[in-house]
Amino acid sequence: MEGNKNAGDKKDKLADQIMQNPQVLAALQERLDSVSQTPSSYIETLPKAVKRRINALKQLQEKCAHIEAKFYEEVHELERKYAALYEPLFAKRMFIVTGEVEPTDDECEWHSGGEEEEKEKLAEDVKNKMTISDTPSAEDSKGIPDFWLTIFKNVDMINISVQEHDEPILKHLQDVKVKFSGPGQAMSFTLEFQFGPNEYFNNLVLTKTYKMKSEPDSADPFSFEGPEIIDCEGCTIDWKKRVKISPLKQ
Amino acid sequence: MEGNKNAGDKKDKLADQIMQNPQVLAALQERLDSVSQTPSSYIETLPKAVKRRINALKQLQEKCAHIEAKFYEEVHELERKYAALYEPLFAKRMFIVTGEVEPTDDECEWHSGGEEEEKEKLAEDVKNKMTISDTPSAEDSKGIPDFWLTIFKNVDMINISVQEHDEPILKHLQDVKVKFSGPGQAMSFTLEFQFGPNEYFNNLVLTKTYKMKSEPDSADPFSFEGPEIIDCEGCTIDWKKRVKISPLKQ
Repeated sequence: MEGNKNAGDKKDKLADQIMQNPQVLAALQERLDSVSQTPSSYIETLPKAVKRRINALKQLQEKCAHIEAKFYEEVHELERKYAALYEPLFAKRMFIVTGEVEPTDDECEWHSGGEEEEKEKLAEDVKNKMTISDTPSAEDSKGIPDFWLTIFKNVDMINISVQEHDEPILKHLQDVKVKFSGPGQAMSFTLEFQFGPNEYFNNLVLTKTYKMKSEPDSADPFSFEGPEIIDCEGCTIDWKKRVKISPLKQ
Repeated sequence: MEGNKNAGDKKDKLADQIMQNPQVLAALQERLDSVSQTPSSYIETLPKAVKRRINALKQLQEKCAHIEAKFYEEVHELERKYAALYEPLFAKRMFIVTGEVEPTDDECEWHSGGEEEEKEKLAEDVKNKMTISDTPSAEDSKGIPDFWLTIFKNVDMINISVQEHDEPILKHLQDVKVKFSGPGQAMSFTLEFQFGPNEYFNNLVLTKTYKMKSEPDSADPFSFEGPEIIDCEGCTIDWKKRVKISPLKQ
């Protein structure tokens, strides 16, 4: 009996290990796809009647892929809906970053999780209020200087692409927006990079539109993993003539 | 001018490199979080007025996290809705896997993408129809034997957990279902493992329910990355008394 109980515990622990990670189900589904997609040597060894039934599963799997495509279209709709909810917060962020709006004391209250930090913060807040709010000094920069440049330089997936000669341009970047395509339109999103007036180009907004596709490829329906970018197009950059580019950097 | 054009192309290519991957925006957001979360040495060097404004961004970011939580709740709703659409297809899959339903010839037609494969397939189909559909032979196994065991053994994230002594049990696994919690209920999902009658336990369905949480932790709102599993509970397994477990395997 003790053995049985242990086995039960083990089984339970096994299920835990297996299912703790939500990605497991996705991986399962993927494996179903690949099992039905590539006739592995194992499948070749199966009786023909079984292989025939696996073809029936392939038909079902293809139908699932088309349902999944509709799911992702609805997620895109949700993203559009929520983009509108984030918008006023992101607008406020931009105003604070550029210095167009100075947040109130209430808006600047922040209590971090750690007790230690909190005490430190409190002391600093008091100090801030005395030295900053009351007597703005020369150290008060406008907004949050180099906000986006700092982010671009610190995001691992982006920083390798930011080269030294991009930095003076990115100092003028004021905001990054994502605009999703509307209902009924082909699925796409547009990135809008808003710049302050600068000596490099005349555009105040650079845009790039990414066209997406959310339907299984009829020639290979099991490779479908949700929407993918199929094309993109950037706006024309109206460079100012006096930009000097070192021959070494071309 | 040629230099300017090159610079334009380069800039364009840079934006491409940066934005081609949709995960970049998520990473950007994450970096925004971590910038505002951990007072790095860089932030420490900023003027106090700027640090004060960063606190305002933290408040905005926390509001965003709460909106994001609602977004994930709606995605969960969508998952529930689509689970109902997949259900008849998955039910059919189970019937084919267990052999309760023999798919029709129409249901077993499958044309793969590659031309080469297609020819091969066609020849095999003809052969199948002659040897299998018309004259069922001894090689006709029922349904698709060991379907789930084969999947479990071939999914990288699961196969390390499938031990040799699990295999005879998993041969009896007939279906795996996911049931999502209903609207108004606390967010959760239940995995249902349906077994055929077997010598190991009396249950025909083993279940495990995963409770989830989709709201930012008030002590650490910036760590929020969507719903996470906070608890799980498996059903009681009614083991049969005569199961023999080798002492070596305990």
